[in-house]
Amino acid sequence: MTTTLSRLLLPQPLTRKAFAPFGDVIQAEGAKSFPINAGMVQRFHDLAAVEVSAGRALVSIFRGQPYQLPLPVKMVERHPLGSQAFVPLGDARCAVIVAPPGDTVRAADLRAFILDKTQGVNYRPGTWHHVLLTLDAPGDFLVVDRGGPGHNCDEFHFPESEQLLFTLA
Amino acid sequence: MTTTLSRLLLPQPLTRKAFAPFGDVIQAEGAKSFPINAGMVQRFHDLAAVEVSAGRALVSIFRGQPYQLPLPVKMVERHPLGSQAFVPLGDARCAVIVAPPGDTVRAADLRAFILDKTQGVNYRPGTWHHVLLTLDAPGDFLVVDRGGPGHNCDEFHFPESEQLLFTLA
Repeated sequence: MTTTLSRLLLPQPLTRKAFAPFGDVIQAEGAKSFPINAGMVQRFHDLAAVEVSAGRALVSIFRGQPYQLPLPVKMVERHPLGSQAFVPLGDARCAVIVAPPGDTVRAADLRAFILDKTQGVNYRPGTWHHVLLTLDAPGDFLVVDRGGPGHNCDEFHFPESEQLLFTLA
Repeated sequence: MTTTLSRLLLPQPLTRKAFAPFGDVIQAEGAKSFPINAGMVQRFHDLAAVEVSAGRALVSIFRGQPYQLPLPVKMVERHPLGSQAFVPLGDARCAVIVAPPGDTVRAADLRAFILDKTQGVNYRPGTWHHVLLTLDAPGDFLVVDRGGPGHNCDEFHFPESEQLLFTLA
């Protein structure tokens, strides 16, 4: 397979504006906050729209194994009934590859971001996303998503001719 | 004020069994898990009973300032309508001081725990607890609790003669 530059998917800076089509950035910096507990705590409040249609919120830990890069983006998935938040614990680092909600997804719509240690993300329901893409080393991530009945995962497989190749800048 | 040994509150090891009267320990070790994402991720599943009676789940970051020890335990609070989970981010470390749900709380019922970097906790609704008690240095904690209408915070103030003095072992 010949890889031309146009086939590469490179990460862009993770900002709230850039991520808005896909969901929320979970980060203290730039968030609204107020003091609580007699001033001993600053609460950066309500950073993610947790949605759990006809279900309940789950808190889990995902322990990811690192992927080798460059990585062909073969498949993305979406959860129509619930949001899904990922927050790195410790030194964990991951990439996020997403496309906006919609019935179909085109490779040209994929965007990639890197979470630094102070950032998490929350996919809104229906946002297409690559599965957890841990970088560097095995890492733990706190996950807030939906549990409950109903079909809550669709996959989309890209034809090999359309697959982008994800790598770091 | 004379402090005798019986007035001290010292932390005990944080285990699921020891914390069961108060809520959940959010920790991969010892939790049920299963592989997902073609084996690249191990999911430690459903670690906290998130309860948001007539409300919704909020995801926030609490940035805590460290307390000086020893610390008199003057007040605890409870949230009757929702659970509240705290998970340390980065190097954050905190103490947890709790008493079981109930109309009143006695100083003798207080228990203290230290969260290491791999552990979080989830207070079930009604569990009496000290406000976030950050140790060592300012630290960030991911918090999953309840937003919505209704009265969701009660405080209990200990008379000075009954206050315990929290310190590390």
